[in-house]
Amino acid sequence: SLCSQMQTVTLIPGDGIGPEISAAVIKIFEAAKVPVKWEERNVTAIKGPGGRWMIPPDAKESMDRSKIGLKGPLKTPIAAGHPSMNLLLRKTFDLYANVRPCISIEGYKTPYTDVDLVTIRENTEGEYSGIEHVIVDGVVQSIKLITEKASKRIAEYAFEYARNNQRNSVTAVHKANIMRMSDGLFLRKCREVAENFKDIKFTEMYLDTVCLNMVQDPTQFDVLVMPNLYGDILSDLCAGLIGGLGVTPSGNIGANGVAIFESVHGTAPDIAGLDLANPTALLLSAVMMLRHMGLHPHADKIQTACFDTIRDKKFLTKDLGGNAKCSEFTSEICRRVQDLD
Amino acid sequence: SLCSQMQTVTLIPGDGIGPEISAAVIKIFEAAKVPVKWEERNVTAIKGPGGRWMIPPDAKESMDRSKIGLKGPLKTPIAAGHPSMNLLLRKTFDLYANVRPCISIEGYKTPYTDVDLVTIRENTEGEYSGIEHVIVDGVVQSIKLITEKASKRIAEYAFEYARNNQRNSVTAVHKANIMRMSDGLFLRKCREVAENFKDIKFTEMYLDTVCLNMVQDPTQFDVLVMPNLYGDILSDLCAGLIGGLGVTPSGNIGANGVAIFESVHGTAPDIAGLDLANPTALLLSAVMMLRHMGLHPHADKIQTACFDTIRDKKFLTKDLGGNAKCSEFTSEICRRVQDLD
Ligand SMILES: CC(C)[C@H](C(=O)O)[C@@H](O)C(=O)O
Ligand SMILES: CC(C)[C@H](C(=O)O)[C@@H](O)C(=O)O
Repeated sequence: SLCSQMQTVTLIPGDGIGPEISAAVIKIFEAAKVPVKWEERNVTAIKGPGGRWMIPPDAKESMDRSKIGLKGPLKTPIAAGHPSMNLLLRKTFDLYANVRPCISIEGYKTPYTDVDLVTIRENTEGEYSGIEHVIVDGVVQSIKLITEKASKRIAEYAFEYARNNQRNSVTAVHKANIMRMSDGLFLRKCREVAENFKDIKFTEMYLDTVCLNMVQDPTQFDVLVMPNLYGDILSDLCAGLIGGLGVTPSGNIGANGVAIFESVHGTAPDIAGLDLANPTALLLSAVMMLRHMGLHPHADKIQTACFDTIRDKKFLTKDLGGNAKCSEFTSEICRRVQDLD
Repeated sequence: SLCSQMQTVTLIPGDGIGPEISAAVIKIFEAAKVPVKWEERNVTAIKGPGGRWMIPPDAKESMDRSKIGLKGPLKTPIAAGHPSMNLLLRKTFDLYANVRPCISIEGYKTPYTDVDLVTIRENTEGEYSGIEHVIVDGVVQSIKLITEKASKRIAEYAFEYARNNQRNSVTAVHKANIMRMSDGLFLRKCREVAENFKDIKFTEMYLDTVCLNMVQDPTQFDVLVMPNLYGDILSDLCAGLIGGLGVTPSGNIGANGVAIFESVHGTAPDIAGLDLANPTALLLSAVMMLRHMGLHPHADKIQTACFDTIRDKKFLTKDLGGNAKCSEFTSEICRRVQDLD
């Protein structure tokens, strides 16, 4: 049957504009005849046994089975004590690598052209350990935890990503001049892994220097790999260079072959339901997902249709500088996808 | 006597191009008839009693007396185990606030115009505590230390700076969504201090959001205050927006009225002694110093002459896009300073 050739993708539409932009992606996937079957799930955390927050069992089960998720924005925290859904998802599926390709979009003007880089962020430890103490009144410590295991894992992911995506260099971003032991360990692991990837150029750079150089000339960077907090910062900075979170895709790679692709912008409650949202970030995340699934021809077609639509400027949503509705922008991409057949 | 009206400034010429750019500043100060007397000192760390690195006693003594230093770039570490001179100076004089005005320079093209903001960085604690441990093999922790005292002190400095410099708003930069206790404490102190400065608008923003917004539209920012590492990053990022460390001044404010102003670029050993260096960053730091000393007319005159020289483009050093020698650029500024009399 047709369905047996289809791969299942767990769809987490999310909140606010999430359902609209998810519907847009579904429509474009249909136009492109992508062989995926959507399994829609709600991941909003619930209180499990023992009072611990967890994602609903049917969502967890779907992800465990499909291994692939596409996720819209989630509003969190929804209640006091409610965890960040982002952090909970990272933890639940051990999503250790956050990958963000930042590539200038032709026709969408920003102060920069020809940006073409990828930030790879360690997503599980570092400054996000959650371990904090009051030492004495008025003195607080937060613990940054760096492990050999996680550092090696992310370094290997970065070099493999570079090799598999025809990229030439990997830069390790660090402050090992200040955090000699923790960032030192991270850096050492990057250096060791680099030894096994002689085809990829390896460099190391201080985080502050990267930030300075990045805003002066982002074209000098290729793949960047770094601990959690530095990745949080740099991935958003780089998104800013190409036009912001509304046009930047994101993927989270987990252990056991799980991966969740997502738009990292907010839920935009002010325009939710008004057919005004821009589905580009979710669509480009879905394109990343298709590549991850090996469906390169479909990925290429959709990406081309999306970029052509933006370059053409006739059907842009408001945030992109146009007047089109989400549905009009989406239809135009569908039309172009079909034309590419 | 004339000398009795003069204030003493401790001059730390530094290494590499340090002596040349210091000589340029001295020359321009002479042309502007600035009533300062230079006391030149070398701060390169020496091993003190008990084997601890310290700055030479005569340099310490000069700073303690003059309370004001102007410092060129220092090459560090000069030997294994030698401390970063920057860190040692911060510690020796409790330089708790690093202040960096980032203002677009007319005629010096970057992707941005009209940048006009100031980063104020807590300079003594946070991620720079230097406390790190190996927990078990392959697991390292670094401790970020945030205190009520230092947070309050930097917040107060930021608001007072804003008030004294006709600035309208202060933004606290944090990740209190992740480091709830440490950044939470920092943020709470900022909020408390804000209560006493009702004339200054107070906002708070996540570090990642600041980075993203900064590269999209830096004109939305005014004074930014933040913990140590965030300041390290943002101050360099913002310097990048206006043309880099070669044109960005910096001041370090300490307890007991001590302050050291410095160029934060490197020693540029490749061009040292060749009369090719650009003294702008050190000169603008010296201008900040003059304002700190209350010598506003001299500060204004030198700044105008410097910016006019850059706008005019006839005598630019190589890094600024011209062919002039350091001495030619300097002479032109002197000429303009004298013309302004
Ligand atoms: C929402 C927050 C927990 C998160 C982070 O800090 O990691 C966000 O900034 C991100 O990058 O996904
Ligand atoms: C050299 C280094 C210790 C320093 C820092 O990280 O603070 C530098 O980047 C700075 O900003 O002065």
